[in-house]
Amino acid sequence: MARIKHAVILAAGEGRRMGGGEPKPLRRVAGREILYRTVSALRDLGVEEFVLVVNPDHRARFEGFLRKLGVPAEIVLNPSPEKGNGYSLYLAREAVSGPFLLVMGDHIYGEGFLRRAVAGEGAVVDPGPRFIDRDEATAVRVRDGRVADIGKGLRDPDAYDTGCFVLDPSVFAAAAELVAERREVELADVIRRAAPPVHIVPGEFWTDVDTPADLRRASRLLIAQAVKGTGDGIVSRLINRRISTRISGLLVDRITPWQATWAAFGVGLLAAGLNPWSPVAAAVLYQVSSILDGVDGEIARATLRQTPLGGWVDSVLDRYVDIAYLLALAVSTRFPAGFWPVVALALLGSVLVSYSTERYRGAFARDIYRDVPALALIPGKRDERIFLSMVLVLLGYVRELFLALALITHLRVLITLLLGSREILGKRG
Amino acid sequence: MARIKHAVILAAGEGRRMGGGEPKPLRRVAGREILYRTVSALRDLGVEEFVLVVNPDHRARFEGFLRKLGVPAEIVLNPSPEKGNGYSLYLAREAVSGPFLLVMGDHIYGEGFLRRAVAGEGAVVDPGPRFIDRDEATAVRVRDGRVADIGKGLRDPDAYDTGCFVLDPSVFAAAAELVAERREVELADVIRRAAPPVHIVPGEFWTDVDTPADLRRASRLLIAQAVKGTGDGIVSRLINRRISTRISGLLVDRITPWQATWAAFGVGLLAAGLNPWSPVAAAVLYQVSSILDGVDGEIARATLRQTPLGGWVDSVLDRYVDIAYLLALAVSTRFPAGFWPVVALALLGSVLVSYSTERYRGAFARDIYRDVPALALIPGKRDERIFLSMVLVLLGYVRELFLALALITHLRVLITLLLGSREILGKRG
Repeated sequence: MARIKHAVILAAGEGRRMGGGEPKPLRRVAGREILYRTVSALRDLGVEEFVLVVNPDHRARFEGFLRKLGVPAEIVLNPSPEKGNGYSLYLAREAVSGPFLLVMGDHIYGEGFLRRAVAGEGAVVDPGPRFIDRDEATAVRVRDGRVADIGKGLRDPDAYDTGCFVLDPSVFAAAAELVAERREVELADVIRRAAPPVHIVPGEFWTDVDTPADLRRASRLLIAQAVKGTGDGIVSRLINRRISTRISGLLVDRITPWQATWAAFGVGLLAAGLNPWSPVAAAVLYQVSSILDGVDGEIARATLRQTPLGGWVDSVLDRYVDIAYLLALAVSTRFPAGFWPVVALALLGSVLVSYSTERYRGAFARDIYRDVPALALIPGKRDERIFLSMVLVLLGYVRELFLALALITHLRVLITLLLGSREILGKRG
Repeated sequence: MARIKHAVILAAGEGRRMGGGEPKPLRRVAGREILYRTVSALRDLGVEEFVLVVNPDHRARFEGFLRKLGVPAEIVLNPSPEKGNGYSLYLAREAVSGPFLLVMGDHIYGEGFLRRAVAGEGAVVDPGPRFIDRDEATAVRVRDGRVADIGKGLRDPDAYDTGCFVLDPSVFAAAAELVAERREVELADVIRRAAPPVHIVPGEFWTDVDTPADLRRASRLLIAQAVKGTGDGIVSRLINRRISTRISGLLVDRITPWQATWAAFGVGLLAAGLNPWSPVAAAVLYQVSSILDGVDGEIARATLRQTPLGGWVDSVLDRYVDIAYLLALAVSTRFPAGFWPVVALALLGSVLVSYSTERYRGAFARDIYRDVPALALIPGKRDERIFLSMVLVLLGYVRELFLALALITHLRVLITLLLGSREILGKRG
C-alpha cells in the first residue's frame, strides 16, 4: 500500500467513565496529551493531513489544541455521539480521499506500533496484547486473512482490535448502509460488514484508557517504555530502573527533564561533600544520585521532550559527579602520596570508559553497544561502578575500591578498543 | 549542466622530462598514483565511466592499474603521441556520448577543485593559480564569457588553463577539422577553435607535474593540504605542523598511518618513562611526541587512507600518553599527598576537554569547532597543554604546571558547555 498521507481520528466519545470536563484525547498521560502523542508520531511517519471527528461541545478545545500544535487538520462535528463511533466514521466520509489511517483518539500507541501499522493494510490486530484488559477488549476472528467477526465477548478470538485501521474509502459504503439501517452504529459493525484484511502487528506497545486508573497505568507504562536500553549495566536493570521509573511516574507531570538533571547533579555533589563527615552516608547518597540520574532521561523520553543537548550536558555533569565523589572520598581517606597514582587512575578510568564509547559514536555515528553487544555484559559501566563504590565503602574497603576501579575501567577501555576495532575491520572486510 | 557521468583522461604523453619508465599518471605522489587520486575523487562525485587515452607501450600497465582499482574504464590507444594531445582527444570521440569531463592525466586536483569544476560548463580556468609555474603554464584570454585565446606565453592573460574541461561532444567537430588540417594538434588548438564558455574556479588546489622536482613539490603540497584544520591550537599552527608536515613528506611513501600512530604513541610513553631520570629530557620528548602525533593524520589524508577507526584509536591513545606523562611527572616530583587532588584534576581536565568536544559530536553529529569558532581561540587544546608542560618543566615550575592545567582545562570544559548550549539553543530559537 502507498504511503499513508491522511489520518482520521475518532474523538467524539463522551468519556463518561473518566469524569471531569476534558475530552479523553486531550487528557495528559505522562506529561503529554494522548492526541499530541498520536499526531506527532504520525506526522513523523509522513501523515500530512488529519481529520478529527469531535463532539460540538469540545470543538473550541480541539481547535485550540491543533492551532498550538501547528498541524493541518480538518474538524468534523458529530452532534450525536450517542449514535456510535461507526457514525463518527461515516461523518468523515467527505473529508477523506484515498487510503487513510483510522485511529481511536483515546488509544495510546507506541511509535514502533504506528510505524508497523502504516506499513500494512486493513484492520491492525494484535494476537497477544499485553497492556489492555482482554475481557473488556474488542476481539477479532480471522478467516482467510480477513475480519470474519469483531466485537466484545467473542469466544476464543484470534486477535484483538487495536483501534487502528488502514482503510480505503470503500469502507464508507458499508458505513452508509448501516447508518440507513440502524439508529446506532458502532465501528465494529462497520468493520464486520466491510470485512477488511487483517494486518497483524504483535508485540508493540499500545493501550487504551477509559478510567482515571487507566490513565495512571498508561503513564507508568509510558515511563517503562522510556527506559533507554543501551549503556545500562546490571545494577541499573535490577535496581536503579525499578526505582527511577517509579520516581519518574510521580514527577512526570511536575518537573522538567532539565530540573531532574540538575537535581541529580546536586545530589551527586552533595554526596561528594558528605565524605569528610560520613563516608557511609556519602556512599549511599552517591548510589541515590545514580538512581536519580535515570529520571531526567525517562521523563524526557516519556514526554517526547528528549534533546541531544540534554544528553550532552547530562553526560558531562555525570563525569563531574564521579570526579567530585571519588576525589572527596580519597581526600577524606587521607591516602599517602604513594597511593595517589592509583586514585588518579581510578578517576581517569571512569571518564575514559565513557570517552572511548562516546568517541566511537563521534567517529562512526553508531552506538558501540549496538555494534558490540558483548560490551553490555562486561562490567565497568557507571551504574556498576557506583554500586561497587557503595558496597566497598560500606564494608570499609576504600583502598580496594580504588584499586578495583583503576583495574576494571582501564581494562574495559582496552576491551572496548579491541572489540570496537574488530567490529569495524570485520565490517569493512 | 546535468550531472557528469563520463570522464576522458588524456594519459598518452611521453613524460620525457620525468625520466624512468613509468607513465606520469601512474607516478606516485604522496603515496598514491596521480591517476588514483583523480579517478577516486571523480567517482565520489558521481562519474561512472572513464575513458583513458594511452600510449600503446603503456597499455598493459594502465589496464593492470584499472583492474586493481575496479573502475569501469575504456582504454583508447594513441599510437602517435607525437601528434599532440588534441589528437588524443580526437581519438576518444567514439567512446563518448553526451557531456563529459576532460582532464589531464598528469594534473593533480584537490577534491574541492573537482567538485566545483563538475558543477559548471566549458573550460575550467583559474585566475590566480598558486601552485604552478605561470611562465610555463597555458594561459587563457576570455571574451564575453568564452575562450578567446589559449596558449603558452599569452601576454596579460585573464586566467590559466587548469587542464580540466566540461565539454559536450560538439568539441569533436573542431578536433576533426584540425586533425584534417595539421600534422600535430594540441588541445589548446582544439579549445581555441571550439571556443567553449569559461568556468572560473578560483582558490582551489590543483597543480601539474613535469619533472621529478615537480613530483616532490606536489607531494609537499598534498601533505600541507592534509593538515586537519579544526582542533589545532596556536602551538600546532606555529610550530608543530611546520615540522610534522616535513616529517610526513619524508615518510609518506615509507610508512602507513597506523605505523605513525603507534610510533607517536611509543615516543609518548617513552617520554613518560624518562621522568624519573630526567624530567627535562622527558618534557622535550613529550613535545616531540606531540609533533609526531600530527604525522599519522597527515599521511592518512594525503594518501587518501584516512579512516574513522584510525581517528578513534588515535584519540584514545593520545589520552593515555597524556595520562602516562603527567602521572610519571607527578610521581617523580614526589608531591605530598595534599597536592595530589590538584594532580588528579589536571589529569582529568585534559581528558575532559576532549570528552566534552567529542561527546558534542556524538550528540549532534557536528564539529563543535565549526559550530563555535570562538573555542578555537580559547587556550587549553592538547598541543598548547603539552607545549606549556615543556616550558614550565624546563623552567622548573612543575607545581605551577599542574595548578595551571587543572585551572585551564576545567575552565575550558565549562566554557565549552556554555558556548555549546548557547549555540544549540540559538539554532532552535
